[in-house]
Amino acid sequence: MTTHLVLAARAFGASGATYTGRRDPKLEETVKGVVSDWGGRFSLEFADGWRGVVQGWRRSGRVVHLTMYGLLLRDVISEIRDDPADKLVVVGGAKVPGEVFGLADWNVAVTSQPHSEVSALAVFLHELLEGRGLGAVFEGARLRVVPQERGKRVEESPRGV
Amino acid sequence: MTTHLVLAARAFGASGATYTGRRDPKLEETVKGVVSDWGGRFSLEFADGWRGVVQGWRRSGRVVHLTMYGLLLRDVISEIRDDPADKLVVVGGAKVPGEVFGLADWNVAVTSQPHSEVSALAVFLHELLEGRGLGAVFEGARLRVVPQERGKRVEESPRGV
Repeated sequence: MTTHLVLAARAFGASGATYTGRRDPKLEETVKGVVSDWGGRFSLEFADGWRGVVQGWRRSGRVVHLTMYGLLLRDVISEIRDDPADKLVVVGGAKVPGEVFGLADWNVAVTSQPHSEVSALAVFLHELLEGRGLGAVFEGARLRVVPQERGKRVEESPRGV
Repeated sequence: MTTHLVLAARAFGASGATYTGRRDPKLEETVKGVVSDWGGRFSLEFADGWRGVVQGWRRSGRVVHLTMYGLLLRDVISEIRDDPADKLVVVGGAKVPGEVFGLADWNVAVTSQPHSEVSALAVFLHELLEGRGLGAVFEGARLRVVPQERGKRVEESPRGV
């Protein structure tokens, strides 16, 4: 699940991700492999506790917490988009402690229905960046998909493109 | 993962889902519980094999296969949206057999980057239905979130709303 979450963050335009809980070398290796193959800059960091990450971020940036209990995305997305500060997007589903609601600048509901952190994050970033992820070019990629009507075509560039 | 996928399908406007592979009573129970609590009509079905589902669907509807190797979403979404037939959206990541590429009416890439079936499905439905999921009302819900700036507020309706 965390792998899907981190890869969705990357594909939809985040510049990096921080995860907490238990360190996961397999996750870090997978993400490193994806960045090495598919390009772009994306950092994955581990932090022992979420509180330090959120409080540190709040010194210069803004915090968005995705939760089905928050304000509806369509009602707050323009305000978030217009805010020039860097954003930290907090996701964690049912495991998120109540304290996060108070620390977040925005608690945002990507629908008020239960679904998935992965879908919430992807649709939030898609809306925040106005679809930029859909055609994004990742620099320095070793592999590049050539979109096809049927089948798979992948071009390889030994030095990246 | 399948639970997240099915709940994302429901939240973003699908009328039902069919899963294949191994029957999963826990998945079925979770989804049944979500529909009973949060309302709307949504059917979850199990099928022994994917081929019968896809071929049966093709008799009256159209098939969209989400794959990072397909045509870019932004290039084909209007065509898919304008097609009046009911759509079956096939997702399965790396486990999808090559044959699906040939049976699909559209192979669609929700970005040409690796991410997640969950994020691909959510963003696809979000675009197909032009954001309808974001404020959808699910009829007959026992529970209803009242969007809040902070904290959680859930109203309960014993007979559904």
